Amino acid sequence: MSTPALLALDWGTSNLRATLLAADGSPLQHRATPGGVMSVTDGRFAEVLMRLCGDWLEAHPVPVIASGMIGSRQGWREAPYLPCPATLPEAAERLVRVPLTGRSTLHIVPGLAIRHADGTYDVMRGEETQLWGTRPAEGSCCVLPGTHSKWAWMGQAGRIERFETYMTGELYGLLTRHSILGRLMQHGTAAPDAFEDGVRLGLRDHRRASHAIFSARTAGLMNRWAPTALPDYLSGILIGIEIAGARESGGVHDIVLIGDEDLCVRYTRALSLAGLDAVRAAEGVTLDGQWAIARQAGLVDARA
Amino acid sequence: MSTPALLALDWGTSNLRATLLAADGSPLQHRATPGGVMSVTDGRFAEVLMRLCGDWLEAHPVPVIASGMIGSRQGWREAPYLPCPATLPEAAERLVRVPLTGRSTLHIVPGLAIRHADGTYDVMRGEETQLWGTRPAEGSCCVLPGTHSKWAWMGQAGRIERFETYMTGELYGLLTRHSILGRLMQHGTAAPDAFEDGVRLGLRDHRRASHAIFSARTAGLMNRWAPTALPDYLSGILIGIEIAGARESGGVHDIVLIGDEDLCVRYTRALSLAGLDAVRAAEGVTLDGQWAIARQAGLVDARA
Repeated sequence: MSTPALLALDWGTSNLRATLLAADGSPLQHRATPGGVMSVTDGRFAEVLMRLCGDWLEAHPVPVIASGMIGSRQGWREAPYLPCPATLPEAAERLVRVPLTGRSTLHIVPGLAIRHADGTYDVMRGEETQLWGTRPAEGSCCVLPGTHSKWAWMGQAGRIERFETYMTGELYGLLTRHSILGRLMQHGTAAPDAFEDGVRLGLRDHRRASHAIFSARTAGLMNRWAPTALPDYLSGILIGIEIAGARESGGVHDIVLIGDEDLCVRYTRALSLAGLDAVRAAEGVTLDGQWAIARQAGLVDARA
Repeated sequence: MSTPALLALDWGTSNLRATLLAADGSPLQHRATPGGVMSVTDGRFAEVLMRLCGDWLEAHPVPVIASGMIGSRQGWREAPYLPCPATLPEAAERLVRVPLTGRSTLHIVPGLAIRHADGTYDVMRGEETQLWGTRPAEGSCCVLPGTHSKWAWMGQAGRIERFETYMTGELYGLLTRHSILGRLMQHGTAAPDAFEDGVRLGLRDHRRASHAIFSARTAGLMNRWAPTALPDYLSGILIGIEIAGARESGGVHDIVLIGDEDLCVRYTRALSLAGLDAVRAAEGVTLDGQWAIARQAGLVDARA
């Protein structure tokens, strides 16, 4: 293979994904392990990394860059939040360095924090790197669906102006696994009609969110939807609530969706029911962002 | 003791509370067991009842009335929902009779179902009996806080005109026990300031509910509230979201709070932050409602 120039780690709550990159930024090799931050005990992050990538680093002691929850207080080393609005060069200046055994150094990308006008805060870790990898146009609204969906508004030259978190994915998991709503549900069947019905309900009733979700129970009790349709119905309600909520913030146009296939398909459909168009970001935006930050920080040759 | 005239069962999801009532409706004796509907296996409801009250019924084979989840599909016998608007005489006509060993008969109070204008449904079981026991004035808005808070609007002569469910209590339990929000929390300390701050956030940001609740995480991360204050902060957010949501439905005035002391104190404070006054119902409204239904149904002497 070509000579590796960078080892990029996407190290989140549940998984660690490692990619060896060539001097032109193209991926050479990829490995993954369920060694996410939450599964690592007693701070044994170095062990987990070396078990997955020790042979690579021994053969090629390249710089290592990491983004995601690995920089949180529960991670390897806390990378203090960069205040938002924030730019890629600011993040590149604030990489947190952790020496590794051998000649490599780990560079952790800081997350972002924003203080909203009402005194509340929002945070992200990892999504800032995806945003910079996406290079969205000025004025676009980026949506990163997931456990904690992020909505981010972009300014000039890739500056992240503001963002908001919606707990959609986590609420879906809690409600299906642990709540009374889950009792009537049967999983495993796609139910696009129920999903759309749920989205419409969430869009129209987002102001009474804790009431709207209860209809995922009554729709089952009253046989409005079959047990197999209820998971998608609830998914639709929660995504509808998220979209209508984000709309209250203003600036929801020129939407760029960033995320995995299944979620992006759901959100595209839900956004269209809200009368909103969306384009999808290309694959690999995390790597692209890590590469761009590494170049900016001088970890790899900027002329490559 | 005076001669018993009625055995009243408040049989919910978690508990069974039994009260023996005299011919004037006053309570004579009370017993309780954690034998709620969810803990009873293989339909052994008769066993649970007889273990708790068998000696009473043998000595005094009085009629038995029951309200709550015992009339649900998961209960002893399904008591089909009464369509709302609904009155006490309608419920008394639709009691579901279950013969017991000996000379007594169990009478299960039906719950209510309502079909909202948008085609979604709402249900209650047990709260209808509390409402009729409270005898709220025409035009009042009754709030029954809990796992699934109910807001009910009253018409003429005790008719329940419409109602809505808010999953506030269940969401609080899910988010504190199973979500990432719970990770930063320490329980056991009252934090009235954090509660009020949360209420204000929920009231102002209820249109972005799944965003607002995330601030129970960021408030911890950013040291805006101490770990001991975060449970009350989240409680406040969720109650604020509920109140502001119910307000969107209209008719939120002449509020009567029905429920246990701690919850009513919380809701009174939260409602006052929303600029709303509330009065509290007297204690014992479940028994009062059961007695009134039993009288209407002729189970006890209506002249008593």
